[in-house]
Amino acid sequence: MQARQLDALVVVGPGQHNPAMNYLAGGAFLTDAILIKKRGGPPLLFHRSMERGEAAKTGLPTRDLEIHPIEELLARSGGDLLQATILRTRLVFETAGVTAGRVALYGLLDAGQSLAVFSGLQTQLPGLALVGELGDTLLLAAMQTKELDEIERIRRLGQTTTAVVAQVADFLTSHKVARRGQEQVLVRSDGEPLTIGEVKRRINLWLAERGADNPEDTIFASGRDAAVPHNTGSPQDLLRLGQTIVFDIYPCEAGGGYFYDMTRTWCLGYATDEALALYQDVRAVYEQLFSELRLGAPCKYYQQRACELFRQRGHATVQEAPHTLQGYVHSLGHGVGLHLHERPFFRLTSDDNERLDPNVVVTLEPGLYDPERGLGVRLEDTLWLRPDGRPETLAPYPMGLILPVK
Amino acid sequence: MQARQLDALVVVGPGQHNPAMNYLAGGAFLTDAILIKKRGGPPLLFHRSMERGEAAKTGLPTRDLEIHPIEELLARSGGDLLQATILRTRLVFETAGVTAGRVALYGLLDAGQSLAVFSGLQTQLPGLALVGELGDTLLLAAMQTKELDEIERIRRLGQTTTAVVAQVADFLTSHKVARRGQEQVLVRSDGEPLTIGEVKRRINLWLAERGADNPEDTIFASGRDAAVPHNTGSPQDLLRLGQTIVFDIYPCEAGGGYFYDMTRTWCLGYATDEALALYQDVRAVYEQLFSELRLGAPCKYYQQRACELFRQRGHATVQEAPHTLQGYVHSLGHGVGLHLHERPFFRLTSDDNERLDPNVVVTLEPGLYDPERGLGVRLEDTLWLRPDGRPETLAPYPMGLILPVK
Repeated sequence: MQARQLDALVVVGPGQHNPAMNYLAGGAFLTDAILIKKRGGPPLLFHRSMERGEAAKTGLPTRDLEIHPIEELLARSGGDLLQATILRTRLVFETAGVTAGRVALYGLLDAGQSLAVFSGLQTQLPGLALVGELGDTLLLAAMQTKELDEIERIRRLGQTTTAVVAQVADFLTSHKVARRGQEQVLVRSDGEPLTIGEVKRRINLWLAERGADNPEDTIFASGRDAAVPHNTGSPQDLLRLGQTIVFDIYPCEAGGGYFYDMTRTWCLGYATDEALALYQDVRAVYEQLFSELRLGAPCKYYQQRACELFRQRGHATVQEAPHTLQGYVHSLGHGVGLHLHERPFFRLTSDDNERLDPNVVVTLEPGLYDPERGLGVRLEDTLWLRPDGRPETLAPYPMGLILPVK
Repeated sequence: MQARQLDALVVVGPGQHNPAMNYLAGGAFLTDAILIKKRGGPPLLFHRSMERGEAAKTGLPTRDLEIHPIEELLARSGGDLLQATILRTRLVFETAGVTAGRVALYGLLDAGQSLAVFSGLQTQLPGLALVGELGDTLLLAAMQTKELDEIERIRRLGQTTTAVVAQVADFLTSHKVARRGQEQVLVRSDGEPLTIGEVKRRINLWLAERGADNPEDTIFASGRDAAVPHNTGSPQDLLRLGQTIVFDIYPCEAGGGYFYDMTRTWCLGYATDEALALYQDVRAVYEQLFSELRLGAPCKYYQQRACELFRQRGHATVQEAPHTLQGYVHSLGHGVGLHLHERPFFRLTSDDNERLDPNVVVTLEPGLYDPERGLGVRLEDTLWLRPDGRPETLAPYPMGLILPVK
């Protein structure tokens, strides 16, 4: 905080599914809270009256947000809810002893409410400069390298994730194949074709069985859908042999904790020559980059390198063709933690603080896409950069392309 | 929008777990989007390039957010990420033809980012007045009454919820009782005591089996925990006979859609006289208020009435004792939709637009709490106010207090 000339930080919003609050209050069940940490002091947690038990579980010093009931605040504000909310916020800041100085603001909240309440607060407290950091924020910088207990939590979730990926593979390969028109598809024992929607329901179920949440869906995209990186797949689609299936799964701990992120690309039964060629290129680039990861290296270097390696293999990339939808069209990876995507990012525009520092946890996820031919291949694992300089895949799982069918 | 003198509305943030975006873009998988609707026009959805497939699924007119790549924006902004983000936002607003007038802003975003980006945008576009509505916002007002298809979605989720509540009751009553010290607790077939943590894991599993998400945990709180309304319960706690268990469950559709909300209070085996007395008072107040619900009535009237009824029965209430932690300590209920808690609220401070309009969907949830004796009782269902004036419990389930044990 000192280096950034910040006198305090303030986090607003709920206790769960709100990474900044989760980081500082440990994932407590709080629907609406304010946490204020002055430089050098402990965080002070303001909570709703009826959430005092949950607030106490955090072990932080706590204060009741509603010590001034809303009725009183409205009466003091001429019945104006915005003014009453600004007044409550000001009383909270005053209680924490933060009425002036540079104060960084974080946490998920309605954008309009944030703008109205905090610009109103600044008007009332002219000595207060609320700072909205972007990119390399204090909190994201703190989250960027992990403690060993955080790494073990991510690893355990990774083991859950690979166990579910294995279940999905077993589930698919346990089905029979039937011809429908020109196509061969997987069918259930009742003869009805299996759908992607049914596969996704199983994924949710198997994650829940193992105690993981899946708040952001799963990408299970086949054919033309697989050719667009963030297409999540079409529930009514059938499981067709020979098509590329991009399976990108990114669950988190129950209640919105740490994430894990991995992707496999599968072809059921057989792969076309075109799919196999893309796969071999992606896999070769993955392995080359993995072998080149070095402690302290800037992340943007690896995105440049990924573009270079893909270009050498004849593919368009975002480096020379920023708008390309064909070839290598995204960035190489990102940090993983309480956010699914956090610093350091492997982008051409990554800044100098986005480096492979000891104990970063990052994904490596090269991919190739061909919308015209309806092909997509992406391979991704979540890696820990060990202090000894070795990258370690936190939850290894085979990268093979072809899933055999009966 | 005309009545509120708004020329446009803007929604920012992800497509899922972001009610404002979900309401207008239908729950699409978008990690970062901007939706702009001018008065009288259709919404225009700005999306990331690689989410163009998901954006197209919404059926809305779409634009690529990244038509100006971040590299270009950074170059035009001297490498400053905040200025580049403000520039991108300005280009989006200009593309939508919104550069002046009163524009309401909604959607979940980092509070500091909202403040920095949108106050910067206002400085650059002096004719633009970004409005952060609180309370009776345009969107919340629109969400307040439901269409029939929304009501059916909430009802289906309610049926899922009651099915899981029934599973939990069956699960508990299938256990044997054993004595541990002074207490009687439920034990598993291996003789080990059952814990609340294990019950909650089953709840998550059974919800997932039925296709529902549970993003905000479940309250399953026993004894002293039950005496604090939002205490979610202690995972290591045993299932003790005779204690009040407050079981409040509020899942949502997969991907962050509509919620359902219900609460039962259970005593395993037997209830003490004190628990039974609290239960009878809560149940009587529930039934009295249910019978008094009238189309068009102001919601705050029912909170006043709940306080009156509880006072008549000798309990402290938030009306005459706003800080009380004992007695009737919270509000009577709230709307349910894409938010777990939305308008209309049954609060003493509810405004005149919070009424029992036709097709509101609300909870009714009176409760009584006694922290000193470690007792809590709450009963809650989610009701639809039918246009014919009758309130209908969307997913009925018995309200009995005592769960028999073997």
